[in-house]
Amino acid sequence: MNIILLSPNSITGNHARIDDKAAITHIRTVLGAGVDDILKVGCLHGLIGTATITQMDDDSIRLGGLSLDKSPPPKLNLTVILALPRPKVLRRLVMDMTAMGVNRIILINSYRTDKSYWGSPLLNKIDEYIIEGLQQGIDTMPPEIVMAKRFKPFVQDELPTIIGDAKALVAHPYADTSFGVAVQTGLPSVLIVGAEGGFIPYEIELLQSIGVQAVSLGSRILRTEAAVNALLGRWLD
Amino acid sequence: MNIILLSPNSITGNHARIDDKAAITHIRTVLGAGVDDILKVGCLHGLIGTATITQMDDDSIRLGGLSLDKSPPPKLNLTVILALPRPKVLRRLVMDMTAMGVNRIILINSYRTDKSYWGSPLLNKIDEYIIEGLQQGIDTMPPEIVMAKRFKPFVQDELPTIIGDAKALVAHPYADTSFGVAVQTGLPSVLIVGAEGGFIPYEIELLQSIGVQAVSLGSRILRTEAAVNALLGRWLD
Repeated sequence: MNIILLSPNSITGNHARIDDKAAITHIRTVLGAGVDDILKVGCLHGLIGTATITQMDDDSIRLGGLSLDKSPPPKLNLTVILALPRPKVLRRLVMDMTAMGVNRIILINSYRTDKSYWGSPLLNKIDEYIIEGLQQGIDTMPPEIVMAKRFKPFVQDELPTIIGDAKALVAHPYADTSFGVAVQTGLPSVLIVGAEGGFIPYEIELLQSIGVQAVSLGSRILRTEAAVNALLGRWLD
Repeated sequence: MNIILLSPNSITGNHARIDDKAAITHIRTVLGAGVDDILKVGCLHGLIGTATITQMDDDSIRLGGLSLDKSPPPKLNLTVILALPRPKVLRRLVMDMTAMGVNRIILINSYRTDKSYWGSPLLNKIDEYIIEGLQQGIDTMPPEIVMAKRFKPFVQDELPTIIGDAKALVAHPYADTSFGVAVQTGLPSVLIVGAEGGFIPYEIELLQSIGVQAVSLGSRILRTEAAVNALLGRWLD
């Protein structure tokens, strides 16, 4: 947590209250902060600033002198479309994509996505992963999250509007063009990554039919999580 | 496992034997392979090719028709120097760096590295993580691993020789130059990343005193694991 996020309704004037157990534990044990210490805070969907701890017990922390005066960093003009990965991997991926500033995350089904992943209780925790990512990346604005459980209708009916006139790339080990070459003419605004094992040829062809360009990441095959972060690295200033 | 690695001493002529439990489980359950199926294999430190399963039981798999004829992908001309992270994170980081083709991995101590990490039994499993990374990245050549438990002597006495005339960068949130700008004139051959929380000013100054350039990764702060993969993404073809 490089910033502590406050919910708008926990703020009254220049006072605020933190009830979240994870945040309280982090402030006590990792930051080692106590009464009179200043914390870096942000208001969810709002500004970033500081506040002073005025009171502290096991269940809540009271803040005073709250001053929120700084805008969160700009979001990337980037939608990441991801075949739903294993639930445990999803947590880290959503956290990292959020911390990096991805603007919209679309989770889709794919042939190689295990059907059971859609029933995982961890899928209901995405909002928590987003908060973790915002607190990691010093941001207050959650990315938009979309679930698209049906691949073909999503690609045919919704994806063309999302892409518009922009560049869209899908990572595919067997593509002729490499990612490095494709981004030389500009970064895409839509990036599509398959589950472990990648998309099947039918899925790649469907994506290509609506104008998505397939790009390889070289001869080495990466874990989905490593691949997404490696791709996002191009957006680092 | 995108390739099954064979140890040289498990190979006799065009026959080989797999005893590794993880590999056997992977072949049976993930690949769903059986007798007469062809596997993509590689010889550790050697060539890549294929072999046919001739016999299979719970404890071993016998291969025949072994043909090794392809060189592993070239390694990156890149040394990554990493402040020893949490042992669980280390596993994924070593796997990913290996899968990406990093040539040498140096684990150093730093002020913010928890001393207990050096005593973790997981540190003795680095060779396993490397094998996992090679099998993920379709490679047979392990990166060189160096442990440098003392920061100052390593930086002063050994790092200058490792860097030579090449470019060396250290990720540092407070640097004036950004990573994106620094790599416009070429990729570095040495990349240095701190533990969670980064290096302290003294450590950054010591690195700078021997010619390492500090670069920021933008206003957002990433998990070490995400940061390393995002940085390595620049080496994707």
